[in-house]
Amino acid sequence: QLISLLDELQISDIADLLSEEADYAFTAFDLMPIHRAASVFKILEQQVQEDVIKELPPQKVAELLNELPADDRTSFLEELPSNTVKELIKLLDPDERRKTLALLGYKEDSVGRLMTPDYIAVYENWSVQNVLDYIRNFGMDSETIDVIYVIDEQGKFVDDVRIREFILRKPDTLVSELIDGRFITLNVDDDQSVANDVFKMNNRVALPVVDNNNVLLGIVTIDDVLWVTNEEYTEDIQKIGGTEAFDEPYLDIAISKLVRKRAGWLVLLFIGEMFTATAMQFFQGEIEKVVVLSLFIPLIMSSGGNSGSQASTLIIQAMALGEVTLSDWWRVMRRELISGMLLGLILGLIGFIRISVWQNLHFYDYGEHWVMLALAISSSVTGIVLWGSLMGSMMPIILKRFKLDPAASSAPFVATMVDVTGVLIYFSMAYLFLKGTLL
Amino acid sequence: QLISLLDELQISDIADLLSEEADYAFTAFDLMPIHRAASVFKILEQQVQEDVIKELPPQKVAELLNELPADDRTSFLEELPSNTVKELIKLLDPDERRKTLALLGYKEDSVGRLMTPDYIAVYENWSVQNVLDYIRNFGMDSETIDVIYVIDEQGKFVDDVRIREFILRKPDTLVSELIDGRFITLNVDDDQSVANDVFKMNNRVALPVVDNNNVLLGIVTIDDVLWVTNEEYTEDIQKIGGTEAFDEPYLDIAISKLVRKRAGWLVLLFIGEMFTATAMQFFQGEIEKVVVLSLFIPLIMSSGGNSGSQASTLIIQAMALGEVTLSDWWRVMRRELISGMLLGLILGLIGFIRISVWQNLHFYDYGEHWVMLALAISSSVTGIVLWGSLMGSMMPIILKRFKLDPAASSAPFVATMVDVTGVLIYFSMAYLFLKGTLL
Ligand SMILES: [Mg+2]
Ligand SMILES: [Mg+2]
Ligand SMILES: [Mg+2]
Ligand SMILES: [Mg+2]
Ligand SMILES: [Mg+2]
Ligand SMILES: [Mg+2]
Ligand SMILES: [Mg+2]
Ligand SMILES: [Mg+2]
Ligand SMILES: [Mg+2]
Ligand SMILES: [Mg+2]
Ligand SMILES: [Mg+2]
Ligand SMILES: [Mg+2]
Ligand SMILES: [Mg+2]
Repeated sequence: QLISLLDELQISDIADLLSEEADYAFTAFDLMPIHRAASVFKILEQQVQEDVIKELPPQKVAELLNELPADDRTSFLEELPSNTVKELIKLLDPDERRKTLALLGYKEDSVGRLMTPDYIAVYENWSVQNVLDYIRNFGMDSETIDVIYVIDEQGKFVDDVRIREFILRKPDTLVSELIDGRFITLNVDDDQSVANDVFKMNNRVALPVVDNNNVLLGIVTIDDVLWVTNEEYTEDIQKIGGTEAFDEPYLDIAISKLVRKRAGWLVLLFIGEMFTATAMQFFQGEIEKVVVLSLFIPLIMSSGGNSGSQASTLIIQAMALGEVTLSDWWRVMRRELISGMLLGLILGLIGFIRISVWQNLHFYDYGEHWVMLALAISSSVTGIVLWGSLMGSMMPIILKRFKLDPAASSAPFVATMVDVTGVLIYFSMAYLFLKGTLL
Repeated sequence: QLISLLDELQISDIADLLSEEADYAFTAFDLMPIHRAASVFKILEQQVQEDVIKELPPQKVAELLNELPADDRTSFLEELPSNTVKELIKLLDPDERRKTLALLGYKEDSVGRLMTPDYIAVYENWSVQNVLDYIRNFGMDSETIDVIYVIDEQGKFVDDVRIREFILRKPDTLVSELIDGRFITLNVDDDQSVANDVFKMNNRVALPVVDNNNVLLGIVTIDDVLWVTNEEYTEDIQKIGGTEAFDEPYLDIAISKLVRKRAGWLVLLFIGEMFTATAMQFFQGEIEKVVVLSLFIPLIMSSGGNSGSQASTLIIQAMALGEVTLSDWWRVMRRELISGMLLGLILGLIGFIRISVWQNLHFYDYGEHWVMLALAISSSVTGIVLWGSLMGSMMPIILKRFKLDPAASSAPFVATMVDVTGVLIYFSMAYLFLKGTLL
């Protein structure tokens, strides 16, 4: 009864079930045919995968790992501590072990880590009939047969041909007649984001991966790229929001872990922000004389933070899409100089109007020098918005220059830096405009 | 010479070329075979597509639009003003016109808008040989032949079968022997994000789309879902950073447009933040008496903003991944109550230590009541961090409840709300701890 239930459910439903109750893993994986078990296993979240492996007897773990497609095995193993990886690799058949070690040899986030060596490769001098026979014999182990790869005797990549071509042609046509020289290859060392862009722009379901000598090493399929893109999205959004990446769903994380992951950034930002208190000490005399200056501190600080986080988000995302590269830094800076200045003037004007209205409608009395005060405040706003836009836009570029992740220049980080310098800008402006009158 | 160049380039390279120089469009589209022209056209950015259409003579536009796959045509047309759409639809052949009007009839961001009616459908009583012959005759117009769809006489969906099954079986096998009852369908009214999740979890390259009566209407292919996911990513990140969505690359947008798109949010936030100035007016007396209170305003405000944007980002993204739904609001609130309190206590403690150290190492003299002052400040930090976490986590849920986009509760928006309430929390705490001594 349970067997037939497991047979009727979609693999995504079984995956959901196991995500909620890892204890079922033992029974469920025992009752499913091993091929189906592997299909379920590969779509589980990393954490659930690890829990499941702990539940299963070594014999079953071995069977499961051997059945798992090579690319999914890589993505599971790469997250584990190296000791565990060694233990698990011992369970693999010699052939699968060799493949896995090769894939794990490529650097993290490279195309090599995404690829699978299970594809169908044929030679130019074969006929369509040869190829179809070959597929009938060996197609079952292949990750996809939607695309067939043509190689030469040295294993170098020649072309890819869609399976439809073989079906649409006469059996005695030669492979060399089907190749059209139109192909796109990924390099095994390319970043995974390159794979996303290439798939997006080229209408393919699988792409060949070659090394620097053009030897075909494996293929990457579009479904794996969709996974990577989803994960990158989650990661970038978390970085922009200023938390470490979680590998578990929000509602499942233990509160202690949730706090630990979030505290790091908050503490760092809090300590950074403490410099505002230090900076303000130097202006205590001015505040004592003109208390009204303190009323505008939150307003002025936040406009710098907002414009900074806006600019950094724009640039992070333009860089992620490849629209902006390092060499564009000067063009970006020039654009942010102009637009930051304009945005600053707009907000400064609004600030000036606010103070004039309050003064003249007697909502609040800023004293006889209210015009100078309003000027001091609106020029601070302009200066700080300009400064925020510049800092916000340059930070991702600088991080990238030092090979760090641009998304790490999260909005709160930029806001904190702008806040500290903002205090200095504000009180310098105040000094400039109010010296001799209020100060 | 140009013809052979256009023939040798990858479609993505031609697309890049046209994105930089739309003037080439006329020549380029004239020289390419129409099928290839359509492949290039469909991967261009919307803005470039519109520029290209303007460059081409009506005759060529008609050819191009008729050749374009139905799903890509929908995604181009849906962004245009309705008058232009009407004009362009007139250029279509009756058959393509019918398809296009049907697809445009589905609501925005629904699976219907992504689908293509060009797929291969066969009946259960056909043999493998019948199917292969049918593919040879009609396969060329199909978006994919990697998956074949089985329907009954009423057009209702029965099952999908991968092409490999047909190749691996004997020609006289019946389709009914190949179907295994394992299929996943999308509903035509499903949201496009559903399609992303289903593709991610089910290892398919194309999925059938049915209506509520299970009639097969079309298919969605994974490459289109990859596009949508990339676009959603860009949009969400822009919303979180507080800018309106751009439809052009950052470096290409006119500065005036860049400023216009960014100014909206900044002005709104600035006006919102003005309430901090109003709130602080009420505490001017307290600030005059205890100027040192003003030194900590930026520090305290920003910790609220940071914890708020952290919490909102976490929840926005958990909702995007389907981990958190509306009905979980109470579980989220309970978790944020606890973790916000803990995070607040951590930061409050650090604040207390900071003041004690400065006082005792004589970096700064906070006066004889420095302990009470430190307590006032650290309990404000605790309160504001807790409040920020609660506001930040509830905002996306509330927006979703009112059918708005949770991503619109961007970090700066939450920060602004927390700032205004933060002023009140800070000065109330100060009053509580310092009444009778400093105040
Ligand atoms: Mg994984
Ligand atoms: Mg990875
Ligand atoms: Mg080719
Ligand atoms: Mg794969
Ligand atoms: Mg896979
Ligand atoms: Mg990243
Ligand atoms: Mg702030
Ligand atoms: Mg489009
Ligand atoms: Mg759309
Ligand atoms: Mg099926
Ligand atoms: Mg499609
Ligand atoms: Mg398409
Ligand atoms: Mg969205």
